[in-house]
Amino acid sequence: MAETATRRKRGGGRAGAAARRGPAVIEQMPFSPPVNRDRPVEPLTEEGIAAIHDGAMRILEEIGIAFLNEEALEILREAGCAIDGNIVRMDRDFVMEMVARAPSQFTLTPRNPAHTITVGGDTMLFGNVSSPPNYWDMEIGRKVPGTREKCADLLKLTQYFNCIHFAGGYPVEPVDIHASVRHLDVLYDKLTLTDKVMHAYSLGKERVEDVMEMVRIAGGLSEEEFRATPRMYTNINSTSPLKHDQPMIDGCLRLIRRGQAVAVTPFTLAGAMAPVTMAGAVAQSLAEALSAIALFQYVQPGCPCIIGTFTSNVDMKSGAPAFGTPEYMRATQMTGQMARYYGLPLRSSGVCAANVPDGQAMWETSNSLWAAVQSGTHMVYHAAGWLEGGLIASPEKFIMDCEVLQQIQRYMQPEIWATGPEEIAVDAIRSVGTEGHFFGIEHTQQRYSTAFYQPFLSDWRNFEGWEAAGGIWTPERAHLLYKSILDSFEAPPMDPAIREELADFVARRKAEGGAPTDF
Amino acid sequence: MAETATRRKRGGGRAGAAARRGPAVIEQMPFSPPVNRDRPVEPLTEEGIAAIHDGAMRILEEIGIAFLNEEALEILREAGCAIDGNIVRMDRDFVMEMVARAPSQFTLTPRNPAHTITVGGDTMLFGNVSSPPNYWDMEIGRKVPGTREKCADLLKLTQYFNCIHFAGGYPVEPVDIHASVRHLDVLYDKLTLTDKVMHAYSLGKERVEDVMEMVRIAGGLSEEEFRATPRMYTNINSTSPLKHDQPMIDGCLRLIRRGQAVAVTPFTLAGAMAPVTMAGAVAQSLAEALSAIALFQYVQPGCPCIIGTFTSNVDMKSGAPAFGTPEYMRATQMTGQMARYYGLPLRSSGVCAANVPDGQAMWETSNSLWAAVQSGTHMVYHAAGWLEGGLIASPEKFIMDCEVLQQIQRYMQPEIWATGPEEIAVDAIRSVGTEGHFFGIEHTQQRYSTAFYQPFLSDWRNFEGWEAAGGIWTPERAHLLYKSILDSFEAPPMDPAIREELADFVARRKAEGGAPTDF
Repeated sequence: MAETATRRKRGGGRAGAAARRGPAVIEQMPFSPPVNRDRPVEPLTEEGIAAIHDGAMRILEEIGIAFLNEEALEILREAGCAIDGNIVRMDRDFVMEMVARAPSQFTLTPRNPAHTITVGGDTMLFGNVSSPPNYWDMEIGRKVPGTREKCADLLKLTQYFNCIHFAGGYPVEPVDIHASVRHLDVLYDKLTLTDKVMHAYSLGKERVEDVMEMVRIAGGLSEEEFRATPRMYTNINSTSPLKHDQPMIDGCLRLIRRGQAVAVTPFTLAGAMAPVTMAGAVAQSLAEALSAIALFQYVQPGCPCIIGTFTSNVDMKSGAPAFGTPEYMRATQMTGQMARYYGLPLRSSGVCAANVPDGQAMWETSNSLWAAVQSGTHMVYHAAGWLEGGLIASPEKFIMDCEVLQQIQRYMQPEIWATGPEEIAVDAIRSVGTEGHFFGIEHTQQRYSTAFYQPFLSDWRNFEGWEAAGGIWTPERAHLLYKSILDSFEAPPMDPAIREELADFVARRKAEGGAPTDF
Repeated sequence: MAETATRRKRGGGRAGAAARRGPAVIEQMPFSPPVNRDRPVEPLTEEGIAAIHDGAMRILEEIGIAFLNEEALEILREAGCAIDGNIVRMDRDFVMEMVARAPSQFTLTPRNPAHTITVGGDTMLFGNVSSPPNYWDMEIGRKVPGTREKCADLLKLTQYFNCIHFAGGYPVEPVDIHASVRHLDVLYDKLTLTDKVMHAYSLGKERVEDVMEMVRIAGGLSEEEFRATPRMYTNINSTSPLKHDQPMIDGCLRLIRRGQAVAVTPFTLAGAMAPVTMAGAVAQSLAEALSAIALFQYVQPGCPCIIGTFTSNVDMKSGAPAFGTPEYMRATQMTGQMARYYGLPLRSSGVCAANVPDGQAMWETSNSLWAAVQSGTHMVYHAAGWLEGGLIASPEKFIMDCEVLQQIQRYMQPEIWATGPEEIAVDAIRSVGTEGHFFGIEHTQQRYSTAFYQPFLSDWRNFEGWEAAGGIWTPERAHLLYKSILDSFEAPPMDPAIREELADFVARRKAEGGAPTDF
């Protein structure tokens, strides 16, 4: 396939020329997160919601959750929970009282306030793929370990595409940087290459505090200003089944104490780390997430929390995780109903099991993205660039996904289904009658340039036109676009003094040895 | 890409071996049309519905529809409509009275009664791609005119896949058969290679009557039995804007008079044959469809009618039709609301503009299929095999689409979101606790083999496993499967006497010269 790409690239033709046409590269929609006013798809009846809620509460009351974090155990003991070793049992009144403190909506303000996002309400947000250890592109044609260079390339896409609203974790893990200082180098890259909302991994106090400090510096903020409103977030996974580990909880406590946001996303793979039944997997996921959110709300009442879902199923043949399946879609919708029941913003994902950016990748990703729409998801993680169940980041897939994300953004614009007299257009229909056509009439001319979604990657020419331009398949077109975007990328502006302060911080912390690597 | 396919095919490996493993070829879900109980997505408010209805009615009352069919003009004159040349104006009371006669649900019974389908209610039906003049596959690697052989190959897929519930028009136009006798040869192939519900093109009285006669013979039915319940259907397009042509209306009249079903599907491309505004395009589409349905209900009260939508938009750059766009999705949902308002079963489509079965093909097709789900569509035309805006039929695309259709079938099974105590599984969660896993426990073992959707085309192995098996991309896997299915295809049983009667009918009608070709 890589050879094919190279051959086609050389033959490039019109698509290649178009893709290389200058700094703008493509015409894209503005940064304007979709407003999702569609009624969600709700498979659960009221009884079903009550049954899953009761299941989650029974897990918390009767079975309990292991907190491998001494501070959390102390706090929860003080709060009146039953502690048995590291197992915490919470009664439902406590959980519901704590969860009720969480806001249903809040903002995250990055260093560029124009990229402020609202989490919750009707707003739908997309973020880049996060944390794959490996990278694949059409030119390399193999799966290779992530590097700082490739990570930076994907960060440029994160900044470039207006349909990407927040920066997730590292879009690929740069394994060529030592783990003790990786967060310093990547955050420097992230903060200088992008000006969107930042994420910190909860992997030890030094990393979390360093990242918060760097976000504060990049924003030109005093500590008081940093704390005044959420600027960034972390996302943690529980160690399913029923366990929260030390650094994840520690990181969240550090963030909420400085006014920042946390997402809690159990990874409950039905049949492996959770029951084989989707309702059971969802109930367990909720119990795990709510136990952490209850802790955070006890510590910092009203702190911004997001409940995440990552409930999918395994492949019955191999035990491997599968994504974008029918069961994944329904679990996401079910969790959406439960998130509304608890009044919490919801995070889900754009995911697939496919290894290359082909048809399977796109039907699985489409399934997961439509499930995000249907579930009323607020934050869509991994919305662009994910392959192989999250083990590979691919720039071609990133760009293909952005085409789909833009289409969702357009899909949400109510002017499509406006029904005023000018849209019903009886006069235009009368003027054309039974013999004419609508191309040339004024009603069309007035609206033509903005009436329809204009793709940047889809090729809508007929076969002959497409063939004459090189017969370029979608991933190869995406590859050309990727190269053009990198060629013309301009980093967002940053005050040189702030850049220097950031660099000094990185240098100082490196000199101090960075962070421990015993995780 | 063709070279790549051939190379990979030779290297075939595990996927190839699996695909060639015998007559069953794949394990697929049973013939069992999905029951869609999801609440539809409804962009229109009640006022929006009223506005579009009023627009459609004003078109019928004030502008009128051209009927290029003398018989229809006579009938509508008798019915009290205003006739001006070939323009018919109908008042809304007449239209609504006639449309109210149409059943909201009916059955179609093919020669194998086990493949009887219900059109309407909660049932969702999928049919093969219909009418592309051209064919493309990975082996040929070029766009070539359709032939009887390729048409038969695609009919075998239509029969083979249980997720295809009805046979549409010719899955590719066999241009190697003279147009005067094409319907005879292809219907012979269709009726012997498949036992699912049949379609007749409304292209002249001889074709329509011949096809009805062949369906009657294939079913072993007397004329009385044939008429007793719908056995088949036709689908007509209006000649937008605002025109019904002679053979389309004639064909429908012939079918309804013998008790068969009709679908009326205007092809209203916003900005070309309809207003650039989607509400206008939908209103015009409804006016065109309802005018024909009113005629049919006047002639044959209660005859089974389906309202179709094929409202999409053009590419702003080239004027070429685009499919599976955000505007297409919303127009389909809007038409779904209107179909429910009129109490008519709805037809929409599985469509894309892509020229090859790649990522674009699948995101566009996924968009259109999810729009079908969201709109409450009953019959999904072109659900498998469509490329290039309907100008190309592809077996690889057919098989890729069937994978997505099976996933929709699975998605609709309520056991996924069952919430009984056994599904909430608190005891299973308790038994695993915080340290175990769910693979081996009884709760999992009891349900493992049926708990999750099992794909036949998706490759869920990790990258290394996929690579070791040849690194086969989705369309190439689909190609291998296509060949295996053809190799092992067995036609459904047919009484030899009936087969002989069919062959005799074809021979006799050919000897008589078939049908005129002046259309």
